[in-house]
Amino acid sequence: MRYVFLISFDGTHFSGSQRQPQCRTVQSVLEDAAQKVFGVPVKIAFSGRTDAGVHAAGQVVHLDGETSIPAEKLREAFNRLLPEDLKVLESIAAPDGFDCTCSARRKTYCYRFYTAASTLPLLERYAVRVEGRVDLARMREAAALLVGEHDFAAFRATGSSAKTTVRTVFSVTVDSTPVYGANLYEVRVTGNGFLYNMVRIIAGELYAVGCGRASCADIEQALKTGDRTLLFRTMPAKGLTLEHVEFDVPLFGAQGENDGIF
Amino acid sequence: MRYVFLISFDGTHFSGSQRQPQCRTVQSVLEDAAQKVFGVPVKIAFSGRTDAGVHAAGQVVHLDGETSIPAEKLREAFNRLLPEDLKVLESIAAPDGFDCTCSARRKTYCYRFYTAASTLPLLERYAVRVEGRVDLARMREAAALLVGEHDFAAFRATGSSAKTTVRTVFSVTVDSTPVYGANLYEVRVTGNGFLYNMVRIIAGELYAVGCGRASCADIEQALKTGDRTLLFRTMPAKGLTLEHVEFDVPLFGAQGENDGIF
Repeated sequence: MRYVFLISFDGTHFSGSQRQPQCRTVQSVLEDAAQKVFGVPVKIAFSGRTDAGVHAAGQVVHLDGETSIPAEKLREAFNRLLPEDLKVLESIAAPDGFDCTCSARRKTYCYRFYTAASTLPLLERYAVRVEGRVDLARMREAAALLVGEHDFAAFRATGSSAKTTVRTVFSVTVDSTPVYGANLYEVRVTGNGFLYNMVRIIAGELYAVGCGRASCADIEQALKTGDRTLLFRTMPAKGLTLEHVEFDVPLFGAQGENDGIF
Repeated sequence: MRYVFLISFDGTHFSGSQRQPQCRTVQSVLEDAAQKVFGVPVKIAFSGRTDAGVHAAGQVVHLDGETSIPAEKLREAFNRLLPEDLKVLESIAAPDGFDCTCSARRKTYCYRFYTAASTLPLLERYAVRVEGRVDLARMREAAALLVGEHDFAAFRATGSSAKTTVRTVFSVTVDSTPVYGANLYEVRVTGNGFLYNMVRIIAGELYAVGCGRASCADIEQALKTGDRTLLFRTMPAKGLTLEHVEFDVPLFGAQGENDGIF
């Protein structure tokens, strides 16, 4: 029997999603709970990897196991064992042939940064302070250039080994909200898949355009040439949240619809 | 020379604001930094105490000392020494006769709780999950009863030693925002002063009314009799944020205006 879980975690104290020796990872903490629930070792498959420090409002995982616990009750059985920073939001029986790694069609990430004279302790956990003033209209203009099917070779960290660097970005939105006297910017990107560090590089480049340290021409050139060095630095992990993973069929109810934390 | 600081802190890892032996408190961390900046021990005075776990978006403190550093630059001098969870947002020379303890005229606190089937790791740091469904209109009706000058004796924790339990509440608002599939409720209270745990008791009672476990009549009765046992339990500290302290004269610019984190 295959089960699908909608999970959420605060990435601050996780060394990423994937199991690694001697590290507290999302996979290892979930698999420890799964072994207690199912009585045997259980492997958890993720719809994709997230780096150390990255958060998730709605990651999707699946696992195979046999239990008399009804699918909908597995959520509670897991949550009794899980720590405060990792919880199962929904648990269901998987549709026929479902594989969360292969079946994911769209993912939405949100990157948050803010401008303020000082570090704001109440924003620092899920957002990154940046220097200077940024121009929302310029960021939106730059964001529009990324929408569509492109070769995003310039938008990936070195050392990544994806077979193809062509991805489709369905939307990139940039919003600004006043929070605690600061301006908080949310860059929300939906695509059919992402290269390693791609959203963090996109967020960095949009910030660079917004504060005048880069231009739309740089983005066009980077998309054309695949040259990473044309783009601004990768933004820190803690500003990134995986919000939503979508499949051919809708799996979860309202809780899958994320409205953003701010 | 007296200086006034606007400070913010994430209360999670502080044992409250006031210095205590062997504890990490806001006062002790600030005074350690102050001693390095001024070269002599410096006492920090707060506009009021906050409990362990309570956050502050805009607390106001003052201190007396002599330094050649311009008042506006003290912010940076302190922030270089302060940890990520406690920062100075603004530093100015105090107006004549200013005392942040005696001169505070209005304080605004926000209490956050949310309804969701599971604990949401990304909300848990600054909000508390509550059971059941709550009715916003009922909470607002109950909130209106608290506005005005009342004897809030029923709305304080036992063991508190305030001379008078009469306080003026200028406003109580209750708002609801959809966040990550949950409903997040923000109870925002502005008053001329607060008794020990008063906002946390108000938030608990409004929740109780919202979910049908208490009624407006209970609040009226509690205001009349001063009987704490008529009211719901005190809500946990982590949902509480001191947003704003106001004085006879406005001290700080836009950063003093808090728009709420969500």
